[in-house]
Order: sequence, then C-alpha cells, then structure tokens
Amino acid sequence: MQLPQLVQTQFLSVHDAANVIHKIGLKTVFTRLADYIRADYLRWHDFEKCARVANHSTDGVIELMPISDANSYAFKYVNGHPKNTINGLPCVMAFGVLADVATGIPEFLSELTLSTALRTAAMSAVAAQELARPDSKTMALIGNGAQSEFQALAFHYLLGIEEIRLFDTDPKATEKLIANLQSTALRLKVCSSIAEAVRGANIATTVTADKTNAAILTADLIEPGMHINGVGGDCPGKTELHPDVLRRSAVFVEYEPQTRIEGDLQHLPADFAVTEFWQVLARQAPGRRDADQITLFDSVGFALQDYSALRFMRDAARELGLGQLVSLIPELVNPKDLFVLIHPDTHVNQEPHRDEASQPAVAPLLADTLPVPA
Amino acid sequence: MQLPQLVQTQFLSVHDAANVIHKIGLKTVFTRLADYIRADYLRWHDFEKCARVANHSTDGVIELMPISDANSYAFKYVNGHPKNTINGLPCVMAFGVLADVATGIPEFLSELTLSTALRTAAMSAVAAQELARPDSKTMALIGNGAQSEFQALAFHYLLGIEEIRLFDTDPKATEKLIANLQSTALRLKVCSSIAEAVRGANIATTVTADKTNAAILTADLIEPGMHINGVGGDCPGKTELHPDVLRRSAVFVEYEPQTRIEGDLQHLPADFAVTEFWQVLARQAPGRRDADQITLFDSVGFALQDYSALRFMRDAARELGLGQLVSLIPELVNPKDLFVLIHPDTHVNQEPHRDEASQPAVAPLLADTLPVPA
Repeated sequence: MQLPQLVQTQFLSVHDAANVIHKIGLKTVFTRLADYIRADYLRWHDFEKCARVANHSTDGVIELMPISDANSYAFKYVNGHPKNTINGLPCVMAFGVLADVATGIPEFLSELTLSTALRTAAMSAVAAQELARPDSKTMALIGNGAQSEFQALAFHYLLGIEEIRLFDTDPKATEKLIANLQSTALRLKVCSSIAEAVRGANIATTVTADKTNAAILTADLIEPGMHINGVGGDCPGKTELHPDVLRRSAVFVEYEPQTRIEGDLQHLPADFAVTEFWQVLARQAPGRRDADQITLFDSVGFALQDYSALRFMRDAARELGLGQLVSLIPELVNPKDLFVLIHPDTHVNQEPHRDEASQPAVAPLLADTLPVPA
Repeated sequence: MQLPQLVQTQFLSVHDAANVIHKIGLKTVFTRLADYIRADYLRWHDFEKCARVANHSTDGVIELMPISDANSYAFKYVNGHPKNTINGLPCVMAFGVLADVATGIPEFLSELTLSTALRTAAMSAVAAQELARPDSKTMALIGNGAQSEFQALAFHYLLGIEEIRLFDTDPKATEKLIANLQSTALRLKVCSSIAEAVRGANIATTVTADKTNAAILTADLIEPGMHINGVGGDCPGKTELHPDVLRRSAVFVEYEPQTRIEGDLQHLPADFAVTEFWQVLARQAPGRRDADQITLFDSVGFALQDYSALRFMRDAARELGLGQLVSLIPELVNPKDLFVLIHPDTHVNQEPHRDEASQPAVAPLLADTLPVPA
C-alpha cells in the first residue's frame, strides 16, 4: 500500500504560548529572544524584505508582514484597532506562520499576540543596549496598556533598569501595571504628568494606543543623554513624538522604507537622515556617540522580528513538547491527485497510516478527534 | 466574576472541507460557489484590492493575497512549487482567513488547497458562461494534474460540457483523471497531441504546472468561435500561450494590474487592450460579440475569488456544524491586561467560564483537549 506524504502543521495556541513562557521563565525568554533577533539582524542581506501590506478601515488596520530568506518564509497577520478596548477586545491581535521555502509547506502556525508583545519589548531592549547610556537605571513609561509590562521587564532583565516612572491618562491602566509587576524587583513610581515621568529618566518609552497624531513627547522634555524608545507611533496618522524631538536626536529605524510611511518619521522630509539599526549591530554605523547625545529608536515593528519570534516559539515549543498537529494541507498518495479527497468513492476521514516513530513529540493530531461520518 | 470577551476562531481542516463537499455534493458546491463569486464580482468597487505579494525562490513562490470590503477582510497564503510532485507533495498548497474589519478578529481559518481548486474551476466556468459560445459541448483539457478534474466537472455542471479531450505529457496523469471521472456522465477522449485535443473543441482549457514560458497553444491551433480558458500561466516566467494567441483574441482578465505581471499577458505591451471580467458581469462591457469571435480568459487567480470561497466554506461549514474552535487570539477580562496570561501567579490553562448557549454548533474547543500542566 502506497502511503501519503505526511504534511503536518504544528499549531501553537494562545494557551500553548503562555505555557512555553511559564515553563521557560520570562527572563530566559527575553534573553533567548534577543539572541534570535540579533542573529537574524546580523543576516540582514539574506532576507527578501518589503514594507507590510495594510488594509485600512475607519477604525483600524489589518496588515500582513511577509519576509523570507533562502530557508524560511514567515508572515504575520496583525490588526490595530484602538477602539477595541471599549468592547473588551485587545487593540492588537496577531498570528503567523513559518514555512519551508523549498516546498512551501506551512510548518508552524502560532498565535502571535503574546509573541508580538514579547518580541516588540525584546527588540526595544536590543536597540537600547546599543543606543542608551550603559549606566541607564531609570525609564519613563508613557502608556501603561497591554504592551507596557513587557517593555518594563525586558528593560529590567536585559539592561538592568531598576526604576520605572509611570504615566497613563487612564489611572486604571497604571494600577493594573503595578498589580502585575508588584512582585518584581522593579521600583514603580506613579507620575502625575508626562513631564514628571520623563524628567531625569535615562530612557523614555512611549507606547500609547490612540490612532492620532499626538505629541506625547515635545522637545522641551528631552534631556541630553536620553534614549527615546518610540513604540506606539507605528501607522500613518498614528504618531507620538513632536517632529522637533526627531530633529534633536540621532534617529535609528528598523527598515527605512517602512518607517518613512509608518513611524514618527512620517512627519519629516524624505531626506531626513536615519540609520537602519542592523548597521549598528554589524558595526557598519555608530550607535551612541557620546554620553550627551540624544538617541531615538523609531520602532514600528518589522517582519524580521516576527521571523525571529516564530523561530524562537517553534524551537521552544519543540523542546517542551507543546503544541498540536493540525491538518491544514492535504496529504496525498499521488500529489497530482487532489480530487481523490472529494471523490464520491473516497471515505472522507480515513486517517493515513502513520509511522509513529516519524512523528514529533506533540499532542495528538487534531484530525484524530474528528467524528467519522456515517 | 468578570468574564473574558470570547474570541474564538473557527478552524476548517482539510478533512472538514472534504466533508463539506461530500455532504453538499459537488454539483451544488459549484453552483453555490459560482453564485458567491458572481455576487462578489458585482460589488467590485466595494473592495480594497492589490496585486498579491510574492516571495520568489529558486524552485517556487510563496504568495499572500489580501482583499477587504467594509465588513470582511480575507487573505490567502498559497505556494507554487512545480517540482514538489517529485517529492510526493502538491505543487500548490493554500490556507486562508476571513476576518472582521470592524475589530480585526480572525473569525474563520480554513484549508484552501481544495477550496482553491474549487474556486479556480468555478471562476473559469463563470467566465465561460459569459464568454464561450452558449452551444459549447466539447472542451480540450491540456494538463491533467491536480486541478484538471475540478475544471472538467465545473464545466460539465455549469455549462453542460459533455465531452472532454485530454492531453498531458504524463500519461499517468491522464489515466488518473479517467479513473477519477469514469463514473460521471462526461465522455473522456484521450488525445495523442495538443493539436488533436484542441481541434474542433468549443473550449480549450490549459492548466499545466511547469514554471517556464511555454507555448502550449499556438495561433495555428485556434479556431473561430473558440473560448480559451488559460489557467496555468499565473506567475512571472510561467506562461502557456503564444503571444499571437492573445493577439487573435478578445482578452478578459480578473484584475488588470495583477494579470499584467502574472498572466500570459506579461508578454504583451502595456497598452495591449484587455477587459476586466467584472465589467462583463455588470453589463458595462460586452462579453462574446459573435459566434466566430475568439475569446480568452487569462486567469491568474485573484484574491476576490478566495474571499468568495472563504465565505462559502464558512457558511457551508456552519450549516453542517463542521469545524472546530481554536484559540488563536487571547481572551481577556481586561483588554489592556495581556500580561495576565503569563503572570507567574496565573494558572496557565484555566478555561474561561463559557455560556454554552452562546457557542456555535461545532466540535469542542481545541484548547479543551490540551493537557493541564501540573
């Protein structure tokens, strides 16, 4: 009997992803994820890159973010709907796939809402390791929503930040952050204004959600030596920094063509000079020049970080035996015979004979749980 | 106790999709799918459209095809790897998602390999209903691979085609088609050359897989009144028709900007006149003018057809109670509190309390089958 080629996709649900993080521990997750991100950024020229593809609507945006090298293809689906919280929904939700470039098989399908929060914070910290003053101990955190705890802890674990100065227009968001982080070693200071939070801070992180051209940070708030980690300005019409803040700073970006469209950079002329961050990591461009320079990472989120996050989550899930196999792609005895799947004589849910030894150590195939039709 | 907002994604596996088709019957599937396609094409201006985003590699391509209207967003992931069959894998594999534009929630995740074969054939038949001679009874089918049976049956059921003239360079492919369709009312004639298959046929369908600029059909083979359904030429460097075939024909396309890049049209000058097919359906442009005109549908596959296919499969699966809920997106009590999912004090796999009455009639939530960690 001829056996079909096995084409299974490993599926990592939200619960699986949370389980991966619980089992590995958040500090190790950030450390390993930062290693994946740095390794991938150092292979910058290996990747086929493009700005993400966005479909805009009145209240939000849905984007696809593909990227590939010679071996792997990754894409992320992600939305941005700032008003979602009114209906009890996250503003940002995501999932994605890692596929084999040689065959096109989608090998790994994962939730990416949690993973996006992790990789965004890890990317911010990786950038700050190169751009912030090495003696940085305090960070202002403007915006205490869904992404804020991840930023606070990534900077705590990867840069040694000891004190976070909190501000949000919604006091309940700040209370939530404090409740979530009270058992950590971080000192958390609630501030009554952005100015109070930023004053004297070594790093200023902005991570607000409103879809508007805001000026969360203005030039008068910026002090010599400060590093600005601008995370929330990531969409046309959604910015956080007054253009003068960028003019006073050395500006670093993930992928210039995308940031010119989506970043706080959108308000500056096309010839305003910026540095792609991979050049700093590769020692092809300087990072921070001196202790007084103002540095700014105008982060919008680039597909390469999701490529890194997908690789990390896949590897970690494999190590831990988490995840499930799903039947996303047909398994065929004869690859030119797709019709057999729906031929009237075909018994629909016949499970292909499986060689158990060839199966990865994951939970049972989802299809096994399906009822067999009469 | 505050309850989290339920955010479930309905997942339709390959087995579920095959089951949908078995239960509804292929003739009704084609009829209903054609209705969905026509309805969506008649709303052409409601859609935000773009050419698909392709990542090319040595042996293939991986593409993302997004499209949206004010209510729904759809995208398809699809590969094209002609050499896959050597390793027992399909050349084309696909999956996709239908999402809610208002919130960004990915509501329906489905296999699309089977569905792509169905929608491609349904689209070909919908076009031929407008473009082929109404008295068409015979079709040449050049290329007898994975898509061929679907083409044969869509034309049988939707146009009344009675005889199919078969040619493939691989005789085993033709044998497979005959075995699959022997119990239908179609007359199947094996031909020893393309010329023999095409001679006297009312419709010539080309659906070959090689990634090369081929000339499967040349102008000398084309007879007055013929309709050419060019399906396999769908990628830069992958064409089937000699440019003179297009020059002799009235050429119809799905979405002109994409077909100029990907279709057989890629070999013709940018000002070569074509008609977008929606105009014919909307009676804004003529279809076939007279019985002797040669018409050509230069099909490459457009995102709108996948939007239609996803809608149809979602609706059909709902009617039949097929599919499963998967946890692709976090369910949160406080949408600004994503961190709670990985907080050390959070019990990872605690299932949110569910109101059974609010659940659609599908199989159990996949997450329910997960082992609870110790």
